Amino acid sequence: MREMAGSPGTWSGLSLRVGQLLFAAASVCATASAIGFAAYTAFCYLIASMGLQALWSLGLACLDCYALRFKKDLHSAVLLSLFVVGDWVIAILSFAASCSAAGVVVLFDRDIRDPLLPCGRFELATACAFLSWAFSATSALVMFWLLASL
Amino acid sequence: MREMAGSPGTWSGLSLRVGQLLFAAASVCATASAIGFAAYTAFCYLIASMGLQALWSLGLACLDCYALRFKKDLHSAVLLSLFVVGDWVIAILSFAASCSAAGVVVLFDRDIRDPLLPCGRFELATACAFLSWAFSATSALVMFWLLASL
Repeated sequence: MREMAGSPGTWSGLSLRVGQLLFAAASVCATASAIGFAAYTAFCYLIASMGLQALWSLGLACLDCYALRFKKDLHSAVLLSLFVVGDWVIAILSFAASCSAAGVVVLFDRDIRDPLLPCGRFELATACAFLSWAFSATSALVMFWLLASL
Repeated sequence: MREMAGSPGTWSGLSLRVGQLLFAAASVCATASAIGFAAYTAFCYLIASMGLQALWSLGLACLDCYALRFKKDLHSAVLLSLFVVGDWVIAILSFAASCSAAGVVVLFDRDIRDPLLPCGRFELATACAFLSWAFSATSALVMFWLLASL
Protein backbone atom coordinates (compact mmCIF):
# COMPACT_ATOMS: atom_id res chain seq x y z
CA MET A 1 0.00 0.00 0.00
CA ARG A 2 2.87 2.37 0.74
CA GLU A 3 3.88 2.25 -2.92
CA MET A 4 0.58 3.71 -4.18
CA ALA A 5 1.23 6.92 -6.14
CA GLY A 6 0.25 10.04 -4.18
CA SER A 7 -0.01 8.45 -0.74
CA PRO A 8 1.29 10.51 2.22
CA GLY A 9 4.97 10.23 3.11
CA THR A 10 6.09 9.40 -0.47
CA TRP A 11 7.84 11.46 -3.16
CA SER A 12 4.72 11.38 -5.39
CA GLY A 13 2.56 12.60 -2.47
CA LEU A 14 5.04 15.38 -1.81
CA SER A 15 5.04 16.42 -5.48
CA LEU A 16 1.20 16.61 -5.45
CA ARG A 17 1.36 18.89 -2.38
CA VAL A 18 4.07 21.07 -3.97
CA GLY A 19 1.92 21.34 -7.15
CA GLN A 20 -1.11 22.44 -5.10
CA LEU A 21 0.99 24.94 -3.17
CA LEU A 22 2.66 26.47 -6.25
CA PHE A 23 -0.54 26.87 -8.28
CA ALA A 24 -2.50 28.20 -5.29
CA ALA A 25 0.28 30.74 -4.58
CA ALA A 26 0.39 31.70 -8.28
CA SER A 27 -3.39 32.19 -8.25
CA VAL A 28 -3.21 34.43 -5.15
CA CYS A 29 -0.36 36.49 -6.68
CA ALA A 30 -2.14 36.87 -10.05
CA THR A 31 -5.39 37.98 -8.38
CA ALA A 32 -3.69 40.34 -5.94
CA SER A 33 -1.70 41.98 -8.76
CA ALA A 34 -4.88 42.79 -10.76
CA ILE A 35 -5.98 46.39 -10.20
CA GLY A 36 -9.29 46.71 -8.37
CA PHE A 37 -9.79 43.02 -7.60
CA ALA A 38 -11.13 43.91 -4.11
CA ALA A 39 -14.27 45.38 -5.67
CA TYR A 40 -15.37 41.86 -6.75
CA THR A 41 -16.56 39.39 -4.12
CA ALA A 42 -15.74 36.36 -6.33
CA PHE A 43 -12.05 37.27 -6.49
CA CYS A 44 -11.86 38.02 -2.74
CA TYR A 45 -13.32 34.55 -2.13
CA LEU A 46 -10.81 33.10 -4.64
CA ILE A 47 -7.92 34.66 -2.69
CA ALA A 48 -9.30 33.36 0.64
CA SER A 49 -9.86 29.86 -0.72
CA MET A 50 -6.47 29.65 -2.47
CA GLY A 51 -4.76 31.01 0.66
CA LEU A 52 -6.37 28.24 2.71
CA GLN A 53 -5.36 25.69 0.04
CA ALA A 54 -1.76 26.95 0.11
CA LEU A 55 -1.57 26.79 3.93
CA TRP A 56 -3.02 23.25 4.06
CA SER A 57 -0.71 22.02 1.27
CA LEU A 58 2.33 23.66 2.90
CA GLY A 59 1.56 21.92 6.19
CA LEU A 60 1.13 18.51 4.55
CA ALA A 61 4.24 19.04 2.38
CA CYS A 62 6.26 19.67 5.56
CA LEU A 63 4.74 16.51 7.08
CA ASP A 64 5.69 14.53 3.94
CA CYS A 65 9.27 15.88 4.11
CA TYR A 66 9.49 14.88 7.79
CA ALA A 67 8.15 11.38 7.00
CA LEU A 68 10.61 10.97 4.09
CA ARG A 69 13.57 12.26 6.14
CA PHE A 70 12.94 10.08 9.23
CA LYS A 71 11.21 7.20 7.37
CA LYS A 72 7.95 7.50 9.32
CA ASP A 73 4.72 5.78 8.27
CA LEU A 74 1.70 8.12 7.84
CA HIS A 75 -0.87 5.38 7.08
CA SER A 76 -2.60 5.18 10.47
CA ALA A 77 -6.42 5.33 10.40
CA VAL A 78 -6.55 8.53 12.50
CA LEU A 79 -4.09 10.43 10.27
CA LEU A 80 -5.74 9.20 7.05
CA SER A 81 -9.20 10.24 8.33
CA LEU A 82 -7.82 13.71 9.06
CA PHE A 83 -6.26 13.93 5.57
CA VAL A 84 -9.49 12.72 3.91
CA VAL A 85 -11.73 15.24 5.69
CA GLY A 86 -9.28 18.13 5.18
CA ASP A 87 -8.58 17.32 1.52
CA TRP A 88 -12.26 16.92 0.62
CA VAL A 89 -13.32 20.14 2.35
CA ILE A 90 -10.45 22.11 0.77
CA ALA A 91 -11.03 20.56 -2.68
CA ILE A 92 -14.76 21.42 -2.63
CA LEU A 93 -14.04 25.01 -1.48
CA SER A 94 -11.36 25.39 -4.20
CA PHE A 95 -13.71 24.06 -6.89
CA ALA A 96 -16.50 26.43 -5.79
CA ALA A 97 -14.09 29.40 -5.76
CA SER A 98 -12.64 28.47 -9.18
CA CYS A 99 -16.10 28.06 -10.75
CA SER A 100 -17.45 31.35 -9.37
CA ALA A 101 -14.31 33.20 -10.50
CA ALA A 102 -14.61 31.52 -13.92
CA GLY A 103 -18.24 32.68 -14.15
CA VAL A 104 -17.21 36.27 -13.47
CA VAL A 105 -14.18 36.07 -15.85
CA VAL A 106 -16.38 34.78 -18.70
CA LEU A 107 -18.86 37.58 -17.95
CA PHE A 108 -16.12 40.23 -18.16
CA ASP A 109 -14.39 38.67 -21.15
CA ARG A 110 -17.25 37.61 -23.42
CA ASP A 111 -20.42 39.35 -22.21
CA ILE A 112 -19.33 42.83 -21.05
CA ARG A 113 -16.05 43.27 -23.03
CA ASP A 114 -14.88 46.30 -21.06
CA PRO A 115 -11.24 46.99 -22.12
CA LEU A 116 -10.53 48.65 -18.75
CA LEU A 117 -10.98 45.40 -16.80
CA PRO A 118 -7.72 43.43 -16.17
CA CYS A 119 -9.15 40.21 -17.66
CA GLY A 120 -5.74 38.64 -18.43
CA ARG A 121 -4.74 38.56 -14.76
CA PHE A 122 -8.11 37.21 -13.69
CA GLU A 123 -7.96 34.50 -16.38
CA LEU A 124 -4.48 33.49 -15.24
CA ALA A 125 -5.63 33.39 -11.59
CA THR A 126 -8.64 31.23 -12.47
CA ALA A 127 -6.55 28.84 -14.59
CA CYS A 128 -4.03 28.43 -11.73
CA ALA A 129 -6.92 27.87 -9.29
CA PHE A 130 -8.33 25.08 -11.49
CA LEU A 131 -4.87 23.44 -11.75
CA SER A 132 -4.44 23.67 -7.97
CA TRP A 133 -7.91 22.11 -7.56
CA ALA A 134 -6.97 19.28 -9.98
CA PHE A 135 -3.95 18.35 -7.82
CA SER A 136 -6.07 18.73 -4.67
CA ALA A 137 -8.82 16.46 -6.06
CA THR A 138 -6.18 13.83 -6.95
CA SER A 139 -4.87 13.92 -3.37
CA ALA A 140 -8.41 13.71 -1.98
CA LEU A 141 -9.25 10.65 -4.13
CA VAL A 142 -5.98 8.89 -3.21
CA MET A 143 -6.56 9.53 0.51
CA PHE A 144 -10.14 8.27 0.28
CA TRP A 145 -8.97 5.13 -1.54
CA LEU A 146 -6.26 4.50 1.08
CA LEU A 147 -8.72 4.97 3.97
CA ALA A 148 -11.26 2.64 2.30
CA SER A 149 -8.64 -0.06 1.75
CA LEU A 150 -7.29 0.02 5.34
CA MET B 1 -29.13 -3.54 1.13
CA ARG B 2 -32.41 -2.90 -0.62
CA GLU B 3 -33.64 -1.03 2.46
CA MET B 4 -30.91 1.64 2.31
CA ALA B 5 -32.49 5.10 2.00
CA GLY B 6 -32.13 6.57 -1.50
CA SER B 7 -31.22 3.34 -3.31
CA PRO B 8 -32.73 2.81 -6.80
CA GLY B 9 -36.15 1.19 -7.04
CA THR B 10 -37.32 2.43 -3.61
CA TRP B 11 -39.73 5.19 -2.56
CA SER B 12 -36.87 7.21 -1.00
CA GLY B 13 -34.83 6.91 -4.22
CA LEU B 14 -37.84 8.04 -6.22
CA SER B 15 -38.40 11.03 -3.93
CA LEU B 16 -34.73 12.09 -4.36
CA ARG B 17 -35.17 11.95 -8.17
CA VAL B 18 -38.44 13.91 -7.98
CA GLY B 19 -36.70 16.55 -5.81
CA GLN B 20 -33.86 16.89 -8.33
CA LEU B 21 -36.34 17.12 -11.19
CA LEU B 22 -38.56 19.74 -9.53
CA PHE B 23 -35.74 22.04 -8.42
CA ALA B 24 -33.92 21.72 -11.76
CA ALA B 25 -37.15 22.56 -13.62
CA ALA B 26 -37.80 25.50 -11.24
CA SER B 27 -34.26 26.76 -11.88
CA VAL B 28 -34.71 26.56 -15.67
CA CYS B 29 -38.09 28.37 -15.45
CA ALA B 30 -36.74 31.11 -13.15
CA THR B 31 -33.72 31.72 -15.42
CA ALA B 32 -35.74 31.65 -18.64
CA SER B 33 -38.28 34.12 -17.21
CA ALA B 34 -35.56 36.69 -16.37
CA ILE B 35 -35.33 39.36 -19.06
CA GLY B 36 -32.06 39.30 -20.99
CA PHE B 37 -30.61 36.15 -19.43
CA ALA B 38 -29.26 35.04 -22.84
CA ALA B 39 -26.69 37.85 -22.74
CA TYR B 40 -24.87 36.10 -19.87
CA THR B 41 -22.92 32.91 -20.55
CA ALA B 42 -23.15 31.74 -16.93
CA PHE B 43 -26.97 31.65 -17.03
CA CYS B 44 -27.02 29.93 -20.44
CA TYR B 45 -24.72 27.27 -18.95
CA LEU B 46 -27.01 27.05 -15.89
CA ILE B 47 -30.02 26.38 -18.15
CA ALA B 48 -28.09 23.73 -20.13
CA SER B 49 -26.83 22.01 -16.99
CA MET B 50 -30.20 22.09 -15.19
CA GLY B 51 -31.91 20.83 -18.36
CA LEU B 52 -29.51 17.87 -18.44
CA GLN B 53 -30.12 17.29 -14.71
CA ALA B 54 -33.90 17.34 -15.23
CA LEU B 55 -33.72 14.88 -18.17
CA TRP B 56 -31.47 12.45 -16.25
CA SER B 57 -33.64 12.63 -13.11
CA LEU B 58 -36.83 12.18 -15.14
CA GLY B 59 -35.39 9.06 -16.78
CA LEU B 60 -34.31 7.55 -13.48
CA ALA B 61 -37.61 8.50 -11.80
CA CYS B 62 -39.45 6.59 -14.55
CA LEU B 63 -37.10 3.63 -13.99
CA ASP B 64 -37.80 3.79 -10.22
CA CYS B 65 -41.56 3.85 -10.88
CA TYR B 66 -41.23 0.83 -13.20
CA ALA B 67 -39.18 -1.05 -10.58
CA LEU B 68 -41.70 -0.20 -7.83
CA ARG B 69 -44.68 -1.17 -10.00
CA PHE B 70 -43.29 -4.51 -11.17
CA LYS B 71 -41.10 -5.19 -8.09
CA LYS B 72 -37.85 -5.34 -10.09
CA ASP B 73 -34.40 -5.25 -8.48
CA LEU B 74 -32.07 -2.49 -9.79
CA HIS B 75 -29.00 -3.50 -7.76
CA SER B 76 -26.99 -5.29 -10.47
CA ALA B 77 -23.34 -4.21 -10.81
CA VAL B 78 -23.81 -2.99 -14.40
CA LEU B 79 -26.83 -0.80 -13.58
CA LEU B 80 -25.21 0.60 -10.41
CA SER B 81 -22.00 1.46 -12.33
CA LEU B 82 -24.11 3.33 -14.89
CA PHE B 83 -25.96 5.22 -12.12
CA VAL B 84 -22.69 6.07 -10.32
CA VAL B 85 -20.98 7.46 -13.44
CA GLY B 86 -24.07 9.38 -14.57
CA ASP B 87 -24.87 10.78 -11.13
CA TRP B 88 -21.28 11.92 -10.46
CA VAL B 89 -20.88 13.59 -13.86
CA ILE B 90 -24.27 15.34 -13.55
CA ALA B 91 -23.62 16.37 -9.92
CA ILE B 92 -20.21 17.90 -10.79
CA LEU B 93 -21.67 19.76 -13.80
CA SER B 94 -24.58 21.04 -11.63
CA PHE B 95 -22.21 22.21 -8.90
CA ALA B 96 -19.99 24.03 -11.42
CA ALA B 97 -23.03 25.70 -13.03
CA SER B 98 -24.50 26.70 -9.64
CA CYS B 99 -21.19 28.17 -8.43
CA SER B 100 -20.55 30.15 -11.61
CA ALA B 101 -24.12 31.49 -11.58
CA ALA B 102 -23.72 32.35 -7.88
CA GLY B 103 -20.49 34.24 -8.67
CA VAL B 104 -22.31 36.33 -11.29
CA VAL B 105 -25.38 36.86 -9.04
CA VAL B 106 -23.18 38.13 -6.19
CA LEU B 107 -21.38 40.41 -8.67
CA PHE B 108 -24.70 41.90 -9.87
CA ASP B 109 -26.24 42.10 -6.42
CA ARG B 110 -23.40 43.33 -4.22
CA ASP B 111 -20.66 44.69 -6.49
CA ILE B 112 -22.45 46.38 -9.41
CA ARG B 113 -25.90 47.11 -7.84
CA ASP B 114 -27.61 47.96 -11.13
CA PRO B 115 -31.37 48.27 -10.39
CA LEU B 116 -32.17 47.31 -14.01
CA LEU B 117 -30.78 43.78 -13.65
CA PRO B 118 -33.40 41.11 -12.69
CA CYS B 119 -31.38 39.91 -9.69
CA GLY B 120 -34.35 38.36 -7.85
CA ARG B 121 -35.03 35.85 -10.64
CA PHE B 122 -31.34 34.98 -10.96
CA GLU B 123 -31.07 34.50 -7.16
CA LEU B 124 -34.09 32.20 -7.18
CA ALA B 125 -32.66 30.22 -10.12
CA THR B 126 -29.30 29.82 -8.37
CA ALA B 127 -30.92 28.76 -5.07
CA CYS B 128 -33.02 26.13 -6.89
CA ALA B 129 -29.89 24.93 -8.73
CA PHE B 130 -28.04 24.47 -5.42
CA LEU B 131 -31.02 22.55 -3.95
CA SER B 132 -31.16 20.34 -7.05
CA TRP B 133 -27.41 19.74 -6.73
CA ALA B 134 -27.83 18.81 -3.03
CA PHE B 135 -30.36 16.08 -3.95
CA SER B 136 -28.14 14.98 -6.84
CA ALA B 137 -25.05 14.75 -4.61
CA THR B 138 -27.04 12.65 -2.10
CA SER B 139 -28.05 10.24 -4.89
CA ALA B 140 -24.44 10.09 -6.16
CA LEU B 141 -23.09 9.26 -2.68
CA VAL B 142 -25.75 6.58 -2.08
CA MET B 143 -25.03 4.96 -5.48
CA PHE B 144 -21.27 5.01 -4.83
CA TRP B 145 -21.83 3.43 -1.40
CA LEU B 146 -24.08 0.72 -2.88
CA LEU B 147 -21.58 -0.07 -5.65
CA ALA B 148 -18.70 -0.21 -3.14
CA SER B 149 -20.64 -2.60 -0.86
CA LEU B 150 -21.64 -5.02 -3.66
